[in-house]
Order: sequence, then C-alpha cells, then structure tokens
Amino acid sequence: MQKKPLILVTNDDGITAPGLRCLIKIMNELGDVVVVAPDSPQSAMGHAITINSTLYCSPITIDDGEQIEYSCSGTPVDCVKLAVNELLNRKPDLCVSGINHGSNSSINVIYSGTMSAAVEAGIEGIPAIGFSLLDYNWEADFDAARNYIKRITLNALEEGIPENVVLNVNIPKLKENEIKGIKVCRQAKAFWAEEFDKRVNPQGRNYYWLTGKFVNQDKGQDTDEWALENGYISVVPVQFDLTAHHAIQKLNTWKLND
Amino acid sequence: MQKKPLILVTNDDGITAPGLRCLIKIMNELGDVVVVAPDSPQSAMGHAITINSTLYCSPITIDDGEQIEYSCSGTPVDCVKLAVNELLNRKPDLCVSGINHGSNSSINVIYSGTMSAAVEAGIEGIPAIGFSLLDYNWEADFDAARNYIKRITLNALEEGIPENVVLNVNIPKLKENEIKGIKVCRQAKAFWAEEFDKRVNPQGRNYYWLTGKFVNQDKGQDTDEWALENGYISVVPVQFDLTAHHAIQKLNTWKLND
Repeated sequence: MQKKPLILVTNDDGITAPGLRCLIKIMNELGDVVVVAPDSPQSAMGHAITINSTLYCSPITIDDGEQIEYSCSGTPVDCVKLAVNELLNRKPDLCVSGINHGSNSSINVIYSGTMSAAVEAGIEGIPAIGFSLLDYNWEADFDAARNYIKRITLNALEEGIPENVVLNVNIPKLKENEIKGIKVCRQAKAFWAEEFDKRVNPQGRNYYWLTGKFVNQDKGQDTDEWALENGYISVVPVQFDLTAHHAIQKLNTWKLND
Repeated sequence: MQKKPLILVTNDDGITAPGLRCLIKIMNELGDVVVVAPDSPQSAMGHAITINSTLYCSPITIDDGEQIEYSCSGTPVDCVKLAVNELLNRKPDLCVSGINHGSNSSINVIYSGTMSAAVEAGIEGIPAIGFSLLDYNWEADFDAARNYIKRITLNALEEGIPENVVLNVNIPKLKENEIKGIKVCRQAKAFWAEEFDKRVNPQGRNYYWLTGKFVNQDKGQDTDEWALENGYISVVPVQFDLTAHHAIQKLNTWKLND
C-alpha cells in the first residue's frame, strides 16, 4: 500500500467510550483516522436515522493521538452518512465501528447500532467491520483483543472484503493468551425471550422496562455462538441484500393474480 | 380455518395514521384484531428498541370497529415485543405492519420501522407482512389497494409464509383498476445519495438536515423497483439471517490464524 489508508471510526456507545478510544489507538497504527461518533450512547438504535430532527456535529478533542474527531448528535448511521457525505474529502478506505461494550453476535446484529453503522458504510460501498467485546463493563479489558483486531483489519485492507458484505467480529471476554484464534462463522439462529418488568410510576400510571433472556437453540459448531463459547473470536460476513432468494419459488406458487 | 385468526396490527407512522386505520378495517374482515402501535411517528427508526428508557402502553379507542387497541410510547419493534410478551394471551397467527405512508422498497427495508416491526414478529416465529404505499401524503388513497392487501393476506394465512421469512409488500400509487397485478421480486440494489442541508441556528451554531436522492442502478426486471415502476405490487421475501453464506469460503482464505 503506497498511501496510508483513510479509516473512518465510529461506534454506538458514544465518543468517550473506552471501547472506541481503544479502537482509535489501534487504527492510528494502520492509517489516517477520522472519528465521527455519537455524543451520547446510542445502543440498540438499529438502523435508525434522523429525518424529522436536526443534526449537530462539531470537531472535538478527547485525548492525544493523531486522529481527527467529530462529535455528532445523531445515531450511528447518521454519523456514517455525515462523515461520508459532508465531512470527509474522499471516500474512506475502511470504516470500523466499536469496540462495542457487549456482544453483537447472532440475532443481536439486527438491533445493534455498532453493526448498523458498519452496514451503512457497506451500503455506501466502503469496506466495513464492526467489533464487539463480550463484556458490558465500562472498564472492560479491550487491550487483550488489540493484536487480533489489528490482524483482522490488516487482512481486510490487504485482501479486500467481498462486495456487499461487512464483517461482524465478536471477541470473547478472555485474556489475550486464552483466546484460541479467529473463526469465520455463520450467525447462530437464536432470539431474545423477552419479559417486561411492569411497574407503577409516582403518578399511578403503569410503565414497563424491557428485559430479556438470550435463547440459543442452534447447536451447530459453525456458528458465532459456538466459537465464542469455545474461546474463539467470531467473524460473520453480514449482507444487506435482505432478499430471501430461496423463498421466491415457493411464493410464486401462491394464488396472487387469479 | 375453524377459529378466526388472531391478527396483530402495528405501524411506524403512529396509531392515528390513515394507513393504519385502513389496514385495521381490512384485517377486521379476516380475523380478531389487536392493534399495538406507536403513540407518535416512528419512521426511519429501523430495528431500534428501547432499553435505556421506560415504555408506556395504554388501551385506547380511536374509531369504531371490533379491534382492541393499545397506544405505546416505544418504537415499532417495542410494540411487537410488548404485544407478544405482555399484552396478548396467545401468539398471534399473523402480524401485519403499515400501511406505511411511503415506499419501503429496495434498500429502504433496512431503515424502515414498518418493516422492522414485521421482521421482529418473524424473529419471534410469527408470520408477518409489511405493507407500504408509494405515497407520502397523509390523505393518500389507501382504499385502492384494499382488495390486493386482502388477497395477499389470505394467501399468507392459507399457505403459510416460508419459515424465517417475512414479506415486504409495496404498492404503486395507482387507482385499483390501473394496478396490473402482484409480482414476487428480489430487493433492487439501490442506495440513497445523501446531501446534507447545512444551516445556522439563531445562536450561530451549525446544524444539518439529512436529505437524499434515491439512486437505482439495478436494471433487473425481477426487482421490486422494476415491478413498481411498471404498475405492479411488489412482494419481496425478507430474511433476518444476515449471514452472507457465499462469502464464508473466501474469508477462510484470509491469514487469520498464522
């Protein structure tokens, strides 16, 4: 690579999140880094965008380092759109999102602001990777994954990510020497069994907190859940053509035009 | 069918939206209807869920009809989760979402609150369909699509929607006798070319409005965009296993574990 690659960094936990700060440090070793990240936590925002409200976005300095940073009032997807279409002079060579505080494996990919930012970059034709650590703690040990993240990113820069695909990387909560390696996987068929915690507010009105239990009944050994449970980092290629091509033939037998 | 099916109805434009009111009327002819819909517009919310805030949900009566209705403070996905896990005594036989005011064809499926509600129902094992009309007008003519929506829904109830698939139905802005029929399609490979409208607020601070132009360079005649432009209703089967299975082999050639 002649020129240093331009790397866009974002996340959904907000611009001060330790996971983002760690990812910036890693990327500063690999390219020219521009950060455009939410000014407040945006977890579980999925692929939400801001269309009925205004967006604020300002340069900011959080810590030392060569990166250029912007703090944005919108969702993770807004951050990517603003970066690509307004803030950057050229298309980034790579977009990385995270490191998320908590898992985005299996079905969580669909709720995740971290992964939606990566998917948005993919839609805009930018190679993209989302990184998540299976530790919700604000003080989680992100450094243990540092060399693995670097290796995956270097492979992406050198090999190129397949077209119309972005990578969903999840990292087990282990020390560096306990991580067994990196596995390319499929998304496990799991879901959340929700329970709502029903309460009464001081004015006597009912309200709810969403809570849930993650249920994985997929016993395949080629899934991200299996990899993570067995000490591996999982890499799932994620697509944004949502067409269930295999179902088209069946639907064509329906009586839709009689 | 011996018993009347239980049909959950939701949307993202809010519980008073004319598109939802029309869909309720159609579904009242086909089954027992429970409505759980957002109390305010939630367009472009994607698959967002409410985890850091409380949810309110109350019974409400908007107009005549046999349906039971609840108004919910959350996102469309929250509405489905609350309905299935808290409000309903049994799993619905079908979930329909919409009729959205505006298109959810092509890549729009990923930003759409309407479709995310349907996808959430699919994840929870409930057959689900999202309906959208290509007319943003609040006074749009939803009745023109009435018989088509009924036919698609009856097919879904009788034939069953393929497992792990939900339907994304888009309806052209045409009179009933101008609609040429219903086509099963794939999602067109299109995207939004964004432009940000940059302004200065009364306090002198820059802010942005997100605007954009829809760009479709996919000339295939099997796409939803082609069907809609040619006067057909499009039905795209949508999956929520986002794994790009075709990319796994390529990624396994990367040097991830040297």
